[in-house]
Amino acid sequence: MLTHGGDWQGYREHYGADALDFSANISPLGLPKGIREAAIKALSHADRYPDPLCRELRRAIAQKEGVRFENICCGNGAADLIFRLTSCRRPRRALVTAPSFAEYEQALSEGGCRVEYYTLSPEKGFMAGEDILERIVPGLDMLFLCEPNNPTGAFTPKTLLLRIVRRCAETGTLLVVDECFADLTEYPASHTLKGELERFPGLLLLKAFTKLYAMAGLRLGYALCSDAALTAALQQTGQPWAVSSVAQAAGVAALGEDAYAERVRRLTASQRPLLQEGLSRLGMLVFPGSANYILFYSPFPQLGKQLAAAGVLIRDCSNYRGLGAGWYRTAVRTPEENRRLLEEMERVLEGRA
Amino acid sequence: MLTHGGDWQGYREHYGADALDFSANISPLGLPKGIREAAIKALSHADRYPDPLCRELRRAIAQKEGVRFENICCGNGAADLIFRLTSCRRPRRALVTAPSFAEYEQALSEGGCRVEYYTLSPEKGFMAGEDILERIVPGLDMLFLCEPNNPTGAFTPKTLLLRIVRRCAETGTLLVVDECFADLTEYPASHTLKGELERFPGLLLLKAFTKLYAMAGLRLGYALCSDAALTAALQQTGQPWAVSSVAQAAGVAALGEDAYAERVRRLTASQRPLLQEGLSRLGMLVFPGSANYILFYSPFPQLGKQLAAAGVLIRDCSNYRGLGAGWYRTAVRTPEENRRLLEEMERVLEGRA
Repeated sequence: MLTHGGDWQGYREHYGADALDFSANISPLGLPKGIREAAIKALSHADRYPDPLCRELRRAIAQKEGVRFENICCGNGAADLIFRLTSCRRPRRALVTAPSFAEYEQALSEGGCRVEYYTLSPEKGFMAGEDILERIVPGLDMLFLCEPNNPTGAFTPKTLLLRIVRRCAETGTLLVVDECFADLTEYPASHTLKGELERFPGLLLLKAFTKLYAMAGLRLGYALCSDAALTAALQQTGQPWAVSSVAQAAGVAALGEDAYAERVRRLTASQRPLLQEGLSRLGMLVFPGSANYILFYSPFPQLGKQLAAAGVLIRDCSNYRGLGAGWYRTAVRTPEENRRLLEEMERVLEGRA
Repeated sequence: MLTHGGDWQGYREHYGADALDFSANISPLGLPKGIREAAIKALSHADRYPDPLCRELRRAIAQKEGVRFENICCGNGAADLIFRLTSCRRPRRALVTAPSFAEYEQALSEGGCRVEYYTLSPEKGFMAGEDILERIVPGLDMLFLCEPNNPTGAFTPKTLLLRIVRRCAETGTLLVVDECFADLTEYPASHTLKGELERFPGLLLLKAFTKLYAMAGLRLGYALCSDAALTAALQQTGQPWAVSSVAQAAGVAALGEDAYAERVRRLTASQRPLLQEGLSRLGMLVFPGSANYILFYSPFPQLGKQLAAAGVLIRDCSNYRGLGAGWYRTAVRTPEENRRLLEEMERVLEGRA
């Protein structure tokens, strides 16, 4: 099986059945009907190449996000944009936090960039401190921050975040803030840096349709940046037809699914504390975050394997830089599913005792 | 509008209507029903990430192509694989033919590779000659050949092609042969280099589902190479989830569409000579090829613009290296559509006279 979460096919081939999947952080409410219908409609012109410029979709995003058309670049999932960004900017020196989403480091390394790490420690709740400012120096070409961070669910405090934005502007460091999970938190508007885009052309935000609208299989993400030359360069990097026409149509439809998005946010906000509590009760060391997933440490490091054998998949985080054996991440899903997770965990832990 | 063919959205925005599109080289018979149904079925699990390893699809391709599972890498269209290949191999010196598909050169240049050109001239029917062998020297890291070539439709003679394969093996040059249009020619088996894969691990073939199965909007292509370390490296380059689950499901279904594929081949083979003849009669200088498209030179260089104004889109090839104003490529489509193209051309040319 693969190290990333959501390897349902690997699970199926290994165990001969489907798992209840808590290893990928996706809305548990399924693909909204309106998106499904738009995707099916798009199949009627599947014989045409997708619009390389994603014109209709970008106009819809521009309206929704209140940004200019030319400040948007769409990608085959946000992950596609991470690789296109490092490919088009060719940074020589970059800073990432650890633990965080592994693709930043991988994309940087593929281009031969020297990657430095700012360690987030469990003692500090995996939160960045003011000392990160000292790491932002002239010659640092790029800084990746994940807000809320994956796998911890922690936000950098907004005041510090704004100081980081200003510091990056001073040092000429491109600041890439991955907000892919931000719209799944309870108060997206209070955390997003969207309001800073106009003033800071060296700030680029990454966003995804994947998680909020349960369309990970369709692949769609976008970048926002007020430096139109950068979004244009990003658009020109890699193949012209990265975003399928099905994903483009699904994205346009998704932007009309406000009620669905609100339901996902409310469900997550109400379920997260219950799941955290349940995990703590079972002896897990829980790191409360703001996202639709929870990072925890299990004193019983075989937990993941035994849960998998019982039909429940959580994300083994031992391969994250800065974590190790015993660290796991679970998605926050529906009440029934979360209960099932806790029950299976209890069974596994009892069997061990 | 964009320079690549198939920019229907750009046409629509410029002219306020849809064109009859001869600018993209796609099966004119539309998405087969079986593929459409498989794509719709895949939407039921669109909330899951796609399988990064495309396991089911690769097993189906392995069986169909008679190659090993580990010798296949799937991509978000063949174009995705071109960029991943240059990104993972980092060639410093490469040779491409001109004119040919522009993405080879773009992918190489993005990685900072020095690109050399072997010129294909109209006097020689845009065919490579033996002198190409002299260009394959130690230190040449990569050679791209498109068979049949885009936009000319010409194949390199098989005997010369085999000498190129052997020469590349001697010089340690990775030979990338793009066979994306090969399955749309009349006798695919007689031209493909598939039979040479086992003996030549430095040979990589690119193939696409896009054109033959009218699924350009879904994006799906694959690479075949007997060097499993190379296909594994290709798999690991870029994001893990490049191929959407809809494309994977559509690909599996496509491999069962033999009758459809045969219909497309027969239609193309029967229509190409008629379209060639019609173009010649209208005073075009036609370069007969073997593909589902035809390259021609128009003594009236404004032909493309005037046809577009009349609702018919052909590919303006003036931006191809080695061509210039007056060069056009048209797809071979259904009898009715081809007739319509010739009629509109006649009208445009008469209006000019």
